[in-house]
Amino acid sequence: MNPPPRQIALIGFLQAQNCTTIPAAWRHPEARHDVTDAGFYQHIAKVLERGLFDLGFFDDRLAMPDMYGGDHRHTVEHGIRCVKLDAVTVLTTMGMATDKLGLGATYSTTYFPPFHIARVFATLDHMTGGRAAWNVVTSVNDNEARNMGLPQAPAHDVRYDQADEFMEVVHGHWDTWEADAVVADRETGVYAIGDKVHRLDHDGDHYSSRGPFTVPRTPQGHPVVIQAGQSGRGIEFAARWGELLFMSNPNLSRARENYAKVKAAVETAGRDPHGVKIANLTFPVVGRTMAEAEDKRAAYDQLPNLIDDLSLLSEGLNFDFSGKELDEPLSSEDVAAMTGIQGIRNQVIEVTGNDTPTLRDFVDVSGRGRLAHPVVGGPTELADYFEEWFTTPACDGFVIAGTHMPGAFEDFVELVVPELQRRGLFRTKYAGNTLRDHLGLSQPIPGAWRR
Amino acid sequence: MNPPPRQIALIGFLQAQNCTTIPAAWRHPEARHDVTDAGFYQHIAKVLERGLFDLGFFDDRLAMPDMYGGDHRHTVEHGIRCVKLDAVTVLTTMGMATDKLGLGATYSTTYFPPFHIARVFATLDHMTGGRAAWNVVTSVNDNEARNMGLPQAPAHDVRYDQADEFMEVVHGHWDTWEADAVVADRETGVYAIGDKVHRLDHDGDHYSSRGPFTVPRTPQGHPVVIQAGQSGRGIEFAARWGELLFMSNPNLSRARENYAKVKAAVETAGRDPHGVKIANLTFPVVGRTMAEAEDKRAAYDQLPNLIDDLSLLSEGLNFDFSGKELDEPLSSEDVAAMTGIQGIRNQVIEVTGNDTPTLRDFVDVSGRGRLAHPVVGGPTELADYFEEWFTTPACDGFVIAGTHMPGAFEDFVELVVPELQRRGLFRTKYAGNTLRDHLGLSQPIPGAWRR
Repeated sequence: MNPPPRQIALIGFLQAQNCTTIPAAWRHPEARHDVTDAGFYQHIAKVLERGLFDLGFFDDRLAMPDMYGGDHRHTVEHGIRCVKLDAVTVLTTMGMATDKLGLGATYSTTYFPPFHIARVFATLDHMTGGRAAWNVVTSVNDNEARNMGLPQAPAHDVRYDQADEFMEVVHGHWDTWEADAVVADRETGVYAIGDKVHRLDHDGDHYSSRGPFTVPRTPQGHPVVIQAGQSGRGIEFAARWGELLFMSNPNLSRARENYAKVKAAVETAGRDPHGVKIANLTFPVVGRTMAEAEDKRAAYDQLPNLIDDLSLLSEGLNFDFSGKELDEPLSSEDVAAMTGIQGIRNQVIEVTGNDTPTLRDFVDVSGRGRLAHPVVGGPTELADYFEEWFTTPACDGFVIAGTHMPGAFEDFVELVVPELQRRGLFRTKYAGNTLRDHLGLSQPIPGAWRR
Repeated sequence: MNPPPRQIALIGFLQAQNCTTIPAAWRHPEARHDVTDAGFYQHIAKVLERGLFDLGFFDDRLAMPDMYGGDHRHTVEHGIRCVKLDAVTVLTTMGMATDKLGLGATYSTTYFPPFHIARVFATLDHMTGGRAAWNVVTSVNDNEARNMGLPQAPAHDVRYDQADEFMEVVHGHWDTWEADAVVADRETGVYAIGDKVHRLDHDGDHYSSRGPFTVPRTPQGHPVVIQAGQSGRGIEFAARWGELLFMSNPNLSRARENYAKVKAAVETAGRDPHGVKIANLTFPVVGRTMAEAEDKRAAYDQLPNLIDDLSLLSEGLNFDFSGKELDEPLSSEDVAAMTGIQGIRNQVIEVTGNDTPTLRDFVDVSGRGRLAHPVVGGPTELADYFEEWFTTPACDGFVIAGTHMPGAFEDFVELVVPELQRRGLFRTKYAGNTLRDHLGLSQPIPGAWRR
């Protein structure tokens, strides 16, 4: 028997906030504004499930972006991601409105005990019948730190060392109940078999957690682990722990390189590269025709303000740009002081070929506050694009970011998904019930993560 | 116009675990064992909503009870609360299966940043359209501490001092968005009014949290705050912060005294005593007749094992009883070393009139592992009981604990609720949509908690 054909994974990129990743999203004429209602998120979940997406997943930030100028007035007035709800709670409402859709949420390793994260996501996996995923992040922002009780975010490499140990504790707890431990036998009075429930007894450099864990092994063995680190240390971390990896690439050739590099890193980490799926962040603008899509894009480009870029760049890089002139080169001290997402800074330096770019370079290259590098087209052009990236290969799937909610997903599901299906690149029904089924990931073997 | 007649509040006492508070519950012939499935909890939610309950609420514990003998083998084998899921996640599934039922969850102030708790419960209040409640606890158990990264639980009075400041931060964040801050006006480009979103800037002895908070003011103003502390410092805390208070009383006269004492404490704290509801923990065993109820009770009494008591006493008191003889008096050092729930210890000492009771005294008086002080009867006897306690008054309502799930609630809703309604003691439909509506609690005034 031949193996099943390789198929595209589709991931809906979600925000439990007042806009998409693009602040201007809320200003879009078709954007819904009931973003604190469960019905809004449940509608999106149903749209994604109708489109047979593998999963929807929420990013998170434990602060609104008020790094720019050290004040939030501009943030709330312009609606720059100023609302941010608890992602797991919102995700659970979406799980109750769907049967198959995978459900991922971002939770930081920086501010919570690993026992708690292990319990929350194991609970979510049970409650959704095996559809949960956890996007692991280390927190980079000083304004998050200040909300959560620290004077500033931990340094970059320390964060990853801590995060490695954090993952050991979380996976350790997830593995402590053997799959057949619970028998619940009224006759013998045995609820679970004593030999099949283990105590972790972790006592490490950064964390201690004794156990026993209080959640039986989940339908997926454990929730799918998502990771998105793209710096050197981040790739090492992702290669060790990630099962679904998100990448952002400026072009196809870079994506191809990174895809090969990350798959090699997975192999170096002693894991099967086929057991790790890589999805590329994509901003589609979809019309019935190319012309309609181009019109949509042009209209959308009218929505952002410069303050959107400045605010999000400051937050993303953990650096206040408010005193800087747009066209003056930043100092090397400034560049070194950008302790946030390294991928943004590195990309700007690389694209400009300049170690001390201007603020405008950051705005233009990063496109942080706008629709910077969209894929624009009708069903054919979009499918061509996805097909090329997927088959080259530059990725195993796509993280679909939206220009506005819920319309961007509605358009995508109506127009692009059928064309991908017609080409045999995407499923025509869900083959299984769990997120691992959708992604073609096998059940994790207890302890396989140990090295 | 006359004020509406005073009516009973009914609260379903829930556990996201393999049994009710009584370990033997899972051994009951009618107990469901699908306790890791959303469907189990959603069924219970629908039963409570059919019975017009004010709310269901989950207790929590961040560890399984393995204090006894320092080992969990007995815990999992006998099913002594060995499964414990994340309560907010489970609660959210219940919220999506109901329209009116209030939804409360316990979360500890000991192990989470207050910003996080504020965000989680504000999100839940939005997602459920104003039905959320937070049961505030301070964590007492060393085995919880060891799971969450501390060598032992903080000392009792320190916990409450910390908890007071914790509440100031949580309420502070909840109050930072004025109710009409969000305008989301596409024309002007104003998302929220800058003057109506404030930064907390809390920097205290135990916590710092800067803000601004990322969740707009919720449908209930903020979630209802539940509290259950019954020691001296606990009453002071509850009187300052609680809106719905849970009490456990050995008899009516004590309940009457405590009711008056707590209401007076609320007044002393500068709050309106009518704005704080007190509910008494009750274990009903309901039959169609008294005889049927007595048979049920007798059958239920066959289910517990002594190990259930010993395990839960050790956990509740944070003290390992495993080396103690049943009938030998404990030493005063032993009694002093019981740093857990003070109410248990105090009650045993008081009832026995002995400062160094035996282990059997603890087992018998506390009834920790069994159905110790049930209210047994048919609809008439149960309604008589509730009517007397309510009208005396000894409470404003009842926390209904279950012998087994979901049958105990099904029986109660089918048999007792109609009789209470017939007597005009309980609602015949929900008058409003929010938990505050059900409880007759007004919207909190921003900043009113400051003193």
